[in-house]
Amino acid sequence: MMRALLLTDDLRLELGERARPTVKSPHDVLVKIHQTGVCGTDRSVLVGKFSAEPGVVMGHEAVGEVVEIGPEVTALTPGDRVIVNPTLYCGRCDMCLRGQTNFCHDKTGNEIGIDRDGSFADYMVLEDRFLHLIPADVSYDRAVLTEPLACALNNLDAAQIPSAEPVVVIGAGPIGLVCAVAARHLGSAVTLIERDSFRRDHAHKLIDGFFTSGVDVVGAGSDDRPDRAPTVIDTVGNQLGLAIDLVEDAGSVVVMGYDSRAEATVRPLQILQRGLRVTGAGDYRGPHFPRAVELAARLPLERLISHRFTLEEHEDAFAVLAAAPETGYSALKVVIQSAGATE
Amino acid sequence: MMRALLLTDDLRLELGERARPTVKSPHDVLVKIHQTGVCGTDRSVLVGKFSAEPGVVMGHEAVGEVVEIGPEVTALTPGDRVIVNPTLYCGRCDMCLRGQTNFCHDKTGNEIGIDRDGSFADYMVLEDRFLHLIPADVSYDRAVLTEPLACALNNLDAAQIPSAEPVVVIGAGPIGLVCAVAARHLGSAVTLIERDSFRRDHAHKLIDGFFTSGVDVVGAGSDDRPDRAPTVIDTVGNQLGLAIDLVEDAGSVVVMGYDSRAEATVRPLQILQRGLRVTGAGDYRGPHFPRAVELAARLPLERLISHRFTLEEHEDAFAVLAAAPETGYSALKVVIQSAGATE
Amino acid sequence: MMRALLLTDDLRLELGERARPTVKSPHDVLVKIHQTGVCGTDRSVLVGKFSAEPGVVMGHEAVGEVVEIGPEVTALTPGDRVIVNPTLYCGRCDMCLRGQTNFCHDKTGNEIGIDRDGSFADYMVLEDRFLHLIPADVSYDRAVLTEPLACALNNLDAAQIPSAEPVVVIGAGPIGLVCAVAARHLGSAVTLIERDSFRRDHAHKLIDGFFTSGVDVVGAGSDDRPDRAPTVIDTVGNQLGLAIDLVEDAGSVVVMGYDSRAEATVRPLQILQRGLRVTGAGDYRGPHFPRAVELAARLPLERLISHRFTLEEHEDAFAVLAAAPETGYSALKVVIQSAGATE
Amino acid sequence: MMRALLLTDDLRLELGERARPTVKSPHDVLVKIHQTGVCGTDRSVLVGKFSAEPGVVMGHEAVGEVVEIGPEVTALTPGDRVIVNPTLYCGRCDMCLRGQTNFCHDKTGNEIGIDRDGSFADYMVLEDRFLHLIPADVSYDRAVLTEPLACALNNLDAAQIPSAEPVVVIGAGPIGLVCAVAARHLGSAVTLIERDSFRRDHAHKLIDGFFTSGVDVVGAGSDDRPDRAPTVIDTVGNQLGLAIDLVEDAGSVVVMGYDSRAEATVRPLQILQRGLRVTGAGDYRGPHFPRAVELAARLPLERLISHRFTLEEHEDAFAVLAAAPETGYSALKVVIQSAGATE
Ligand SMILES: NC(=O)c1ccc[n+]([C@@H]2O[C@H](COP(=O)([O-])OP(=O)(O)OC[C@H]3O[C@@H](n4cnc5c(N)ncnc54)[C@H](OP(=O)(O)O)[C@@H]3O)[C@@H](O)[C@H]2O)c1
Ligand SMILES: NC(=O)c1ccc[n+]([C@@H]2O[C@H](COP(=O)([O-])OP(=O)(O)OC[C@H]3O[C@@H](n4cnc5c(N)ncnc54)[C@H](OP(=O)(O)O)[C@@H]3O)[C@@H](O)[C@H]2O)c1
Ligand SMILES: NC(=O)c1ccc[n+]([C@@H]2O[C@H](COP(=O)([O-])OP(=O)(O)OC[C@H]3O[C@@H](n4cnc5c(N)ncnc54)[C@H](OP(=O)(O)O)[C@@H]3O)[C@@H](O)[C@H]2O)c1
Ligand SMILES: NC(=O)c1ccc[n+]([C@@H]2O[C@H](COP(=O)([O-])OP(=O)(O)OC[C@H]3O[C@@H](n4cnc5c(N)ncnc54)[C@H](OP(=O)(O)O)[C@@H]3O)[C@@H](O)[C@H]2O)c1
Ligand SMILES: [Zn+2]
Ligand SMILES: [Zn+2]
Ligand SMILES: [Zn+2]
Ligand SMILES: [Zn+2]
Repeated sequence: MMRALLLTDDLRLELGERARPTVKSPHDVLVKIHQTGVCGTDRSVLVGKFSAEPGVVMGHEAVGEVVEIGPEVTALTPGDRVIVNPTLYCGRCDMCLRGQTNFCHDKTGNEIGIDRDGSFADYMVLEDRFLHLIPADVSYDRAVLTEPLACALNNLDAAQIPSAEPVVVIGAGPIGLVCAVAARHLGSAVTLIERDSFRRDHAHKLIDGFFTSGVDVVGAGSDDRPDRAPTVIDTVGNQLGLAIDLVEDAGSVVVMGYDSRAEATVRPLQILQRGLRVTGAGDYRGPHFPRAVELAARLPLERLISHRFTLEEHEDAFAVLAAAPETGYSALKVVIQSAGATE
Repeated sequence: MMRALLLTDDLRLELGERARPTVKSPHDVLVKIHQTGVCGTDRSVLVGKFSAEPGVVMGHEAVGEVVEIGPEVTALTPGDRVIVNPTLYCGRCDMCLRGQTNFCHDKTGNEIGIDRDGSFADYMVLEDRFLHLIPADVSYDRAVLTEPLACALNNLDAAQIPSAEPVVVIGAGPIGLVCAVAARHLGSAVTLIERDSFRRDHAHKLIDGFFTSGVDVVGAGSDDRPDRAPTVIDTVGNQLGLAIDLVEDAGSVVVMGYDSRAEATVRPLQILQRGLRVTGAGDYRGPHFPRAVELAARLPLERLISHRFTLEEHEDAFAVLAAAPETGYSALKVVIQSAGATE
Repeated sequence: MMRALLLTDDLRLELGERARPTVKSPHDVLVKIHQTGVCGTDRSVLVGKFSAEPGVVMGHEAVGEVVEIGPEVTALTPGDRVIVNPTLYCGRCDMCLRGQTNFCHDKTGNEIGIDRDGSFADYMVLEDRFLHLIPADVSYDRAVLTEPLACALNNLDAAQIPSAEPVVVIGAGPIGLVCAVAARHLGSAVTLIERDSFRRDHAHKLIDGFFTSGVDVVGAGSDDRPDRAPTVIDTVGNQLGLAIDLVEDAGSVVVMGYDSRAEATVRPLQILQRGLRVTGAGDYRGPHFPRAVELAARLPLERLISHRFTLEEHEDAFAVLAAAPETGYSALKVVIQSAGATE
Repeated sequence: MMRALLLTDDLRLELGERARPTVKSPHDVLVKIHQTGVCGTDRSVLVGKFSAEPGVVMGHEAVGEVVEIGPEVTALTPGDRVIVNPTLYCGRCDMCLRGQTNFCHDKTGNEIGIDRDGSFADYMVLEDRFLHLIPADVSYDRAVLTEPLACALNNLDAAQIPSAEPVVVIGAGPIGLVCAVAARHLGSAVTLIERDSFRRDHAHKLIDGFFTSGVDVVGAGSDDRPDRAPTVIDTVGNQLGLAIDLVEDAGSVVVMGYDSRAEATVRPLQILQRGLRVTGAGDYRGPHFPRAVELAARLPLERLISHRFTLEEHEDAFAVLAAAPETGYSALKVVIQSAGATE
């Protein structure tokens, strides 16, 4: 048996027990989970903004250690430290064969932490092709941010940023910060807009360590408005109007934040005459993940981690994230440790 | 003196007289206008949907013959048949130097037929770089459709059609038809949606002569709905909702029609999760025009011309276009002939 | 048991017997082969230009009928007509995870007809993801040319043809013809250079049926030299010098033909100053295949088939291809029929 | 009158006098030259590797101050500090209209410092569109390296570096260093190969100040061979064989260095099977220049300048560059100061 955080019918997390999963098919790998990042999506499930299967083990931004491998696994061996790519795809459907693994037709029952058991647990079994070796000089703390980095790369690709020109990122949560760091690393000057002062301070600290120049952090007030930029990424999800105001002619706006309630009124003629692109990227595609693994080796993403809890402390973990907007944030990236970290 | 159709204060066209323009700067070319296509924009000015400078000579889709050249013109010589590229740009401003001639900062006073004298007249003077030689085997009738083709190429580029996959075009006016012909020529299967039966019939006739297969023409009713396609181009300008319904996941919608009153409500989450791109292309860039000149040589675009009038008959010319939507269209492409055609 | 053409140690084909392959893993599919195209590579093996494993069943451009499926196959069912994608990839190695399935690290033992049994036989077993349903209105004869079309798409992609501009194709064998047809369909004017008059005549017949204009077929003499074009594709494999002469400044040359003995002397300064790209495409990537399946439905590729033989007639099949260059060709595409066609 | 360095018939530079150029056409600007970088091409002219017009004023990597403007110049005003874009283009020929200004048909007589008077002089007149304002916080020393940066951007674009993956640059002269700095800024890890130990030391000093990690400098010996990379840029011009050895499958090699004597033997089959691209970029296009101006504001390129001389000291300036390969280099970027710097 093993410990696991299960989703209840009334949308709470509960520490329970689950049979330890086992290697069944020849490419399966048993991983002892070290830690799992808490994603905005996890929080959305608990507050009812995004739905998941009751009874599921939640969690998907995981890193851990290989414990056992199936007979046809050649790239991994017990003891290896690995990163989980939680965006599964079948590799056989029409979309996968076209390379659009992010629109795989075989998603049902394969969304880790949503309708298939995830990594807020001590162990997990996954096919080898969804496990990536952590480079020797990369810590678990950095590696756990690989998945958000893959999301960022996907959205930056969708932005089609012209020749490393300036980028505005709306929202300085973990996703906004990872986007900012990635865009800056790829040569763009970045302006981060964040209304919360805790997050602005935190962002300053993080970024100033990363780069000597090229990232500004500003408030959301109308006085703080940055110059128009060729690319604006909305990591909040309900800021399309602002994003269109902030983007240059011939520029592009990327919707990256999830907000199921958001609606926006657009004028098609403005899109036409200003030559704008309003874009969504979907999930990342398969090839974004190995790119993210490589890129993470060069970016000190571990600095985003502000809090660390055990499986038992899960209520505290979500408490620091549940702060009402009025009261301000008190956390950035929160990780939950499993058997691999705590035993 | 020469004849010219002038815009009155109360938004009518009036046949008047104007001094014949003369070659002033070393790169100027005097062109005797053969004919000018009537563009949706011309009609929009007269019905008050788009504004232009009272007193201006309207018209911009022009072809004609070189009559006189400035001392530094080397590429053209009197007698040459030429196509006008009416989308002027300065070549010196920030945007032009970046190659974004379509967002030239020096537009004021340089929009032909809008705030600078156009080609519903007998003569016109223009810089050599905005005049393109008509290939020997291309007629004036075909050449006059080069400018709409440049618009189509610009919008097809903006669509970033994946590997010649299917395209849906909403609206089978001249612009929709040119888009359909160009997209089909570039390898896509095309479905044209048009609510007017006259236009559907006309479209059938045109297209069936061009291509043996690969273009469908359907009505706008809900029964006629084509399959979802990776690309949808709205040449009406107020069909964004329909376009989003018709586009495949990971696909793109291009807003091409002008409608200053159109508004649409979009859900950013849908754009994100479906991986959509909603795009406007602005005007075409400089390099689209020579591409259009070359491509026109291979496409029998002259078949779009349904009516032909003289400058004197300008009221009839707009009458066939002014049909109320309720009563249906009775024209497709209308051209107005000037000195070069009628003397 | 079943019939199969086996490669002997002294590089001949021999009709022999082989155990009928069986469905072993859950995604396996047993296919009764209808027919297989003879590829330039097959001939290269027999004349000693390309090496293959003695004892192997040769043949890879196959179509056939599903006879039996493994328990996890959902997309196919017995009776389905299918096309084989013979360019296998593991889907798990570093290169596959990056989307570069054409450089899969797991090629050894997986090259169909080279070091793994192929389709000059009555039956074949393959994983479902390498079998594509033949669209209802596509014949086996057309479908058998899907694989060459996938090769052509891969090489046209590598060419990065600017906006459907002209293409020169050197060599009018099956590969050159498929490239020409695909490039023309995608909007380019094409010139085919072929030194053999039988092939030029055949090319004319094929192409004239496909397209009303836009493809020229010329000889290889210096008098026939076409205009420089932005793209030149060498399907012979030893014509790099000619290709560089024929390509426009800022253009690209694609090496598509295999010639293990070819060498060429290039001047780097010419490449630099003329802004040239000399490109090889490798094998096609996974997503090229479904694109080829779709595109084949629109192109009457079956017209390339000039000869048809049974497995027993294999010597005749290669005889029509073995014509010495001096004596000229007498065949274009040759297919060999198996159980699915002949029983 | 003014001072100017003139090319003699026997390929020496001579300090002479020239009439001070004057503003003639409405867009002309008179610039007092501050300083001019010595380019590899200048040296190539003097050692007979590249030809120029005897009697011409050499020099083209110039910065200076606006002294007088023509009546239609609006973007500049006397006193402005400006950078010269020396890659002139007409803006009217076929190539320019297609956006390929780097292959302008009107080059003859317009190559600054080659067949049209350049900037090793006190003054120079140029059209406004070839003069760019130096941003307020950028020094003349940094600005003088904008032109090499535009060359680097052009060649990095041509490389089509996949998602900021590693780049190998052969040669650590000024061009190699600027490429390395630009590629690193755009997110790639860079390895510089340089056989000269003075240059390796200098490169270390420069780069270590720019970036905390991500640039390696290695010797040219076979022991120093870096790992294969997706992109290799040869700034020497005769290292194509090495470049092909060092590039990964599916990667690209860019020829950037000029060497009129270099020849290389390539095997087309290797290019095909390895999926390689061998590319030349030609000159940069117009839009690369404003991008370089912007990017220079973020990169401390002034550190490349190792020597500074007056017009009178021109012999010393070229002496530090003329070091025989056997004896090693003693300079990196050399600048020559004119009236704007020395008066
Ligand atoms: N597209 C992808 O690939 C991808 C991947 C991972 C995550 N995401 C999404 O990206 C978003 C950001 O993720 P995260 O982890 O960085 O979450 P987060 O920022 O910690 O939480 C997002 C919250 O920030 C608040 N917020 C911040 N700035 C705001 C502003 N200017 N105006 C209004 N509200 C503002 C909103 O909080 P309240 O609503 O509580 O007021 C919003 O829901 C989430 O929606 C997440 O689901 C997308
Ligand atoms: N983006 C560009 O580069 C570019 C270039 C040239 C022209 N245009 C624009 O493209 C549009 C089409 O041009 P055109 O010459 O082909 O004009 P058109 O089709 O002859 O006229 C457009 C009109 O079609 C009617 N219409 C057609 N289908 C419709 C549908 N499904 N639902 C509602 N209305 C429908 C509307 O008429 P009513 O409004 O009268 O009912 C619409 O304004 C115009 O707006 C034009 O200004 C754009
Ligand atoms: N890159 C890919 O994806 C791919 C895929 C399939 C096939 N291929 C290759 O593409 C090439 C063409 O295939 P195919 O089926 O169309 O073969 P093919 O043309 O029937 O045979 C190729 C032969 O054409 C002769 N040839 C034609 N024109 C020539 C010219 N101008 N100068 C000299 N020789 C000329 C040569 O014959 P001789 O050597 O007998 O004199 C050459 O080897 C083959 O090398 C094949 O292996 C490449
Ligand atoms: N493509 C463009 O846009 C562009 C723009 C500007 C300059 N360039 C060219 O780029 C090249 C480099 O310019 P630069 O200013 O940086 O010149 P540079 O390095 O100071 O001089 C180039 C010289 O470096 C020597 N060299 C360095 N490494 C070498 C190696 N591994 N093997 C052999 N020789 C080596 C060679 O000298 P020796 O020949 O004296 O032995 C070579 O000619 C020049 O050819 C220049 O003309 C190109
Ligand atoms: Zn799938
Ligand atoms: Zn402009
Ligand atoms: Zn593989
Ligand atoms: Zn030019």
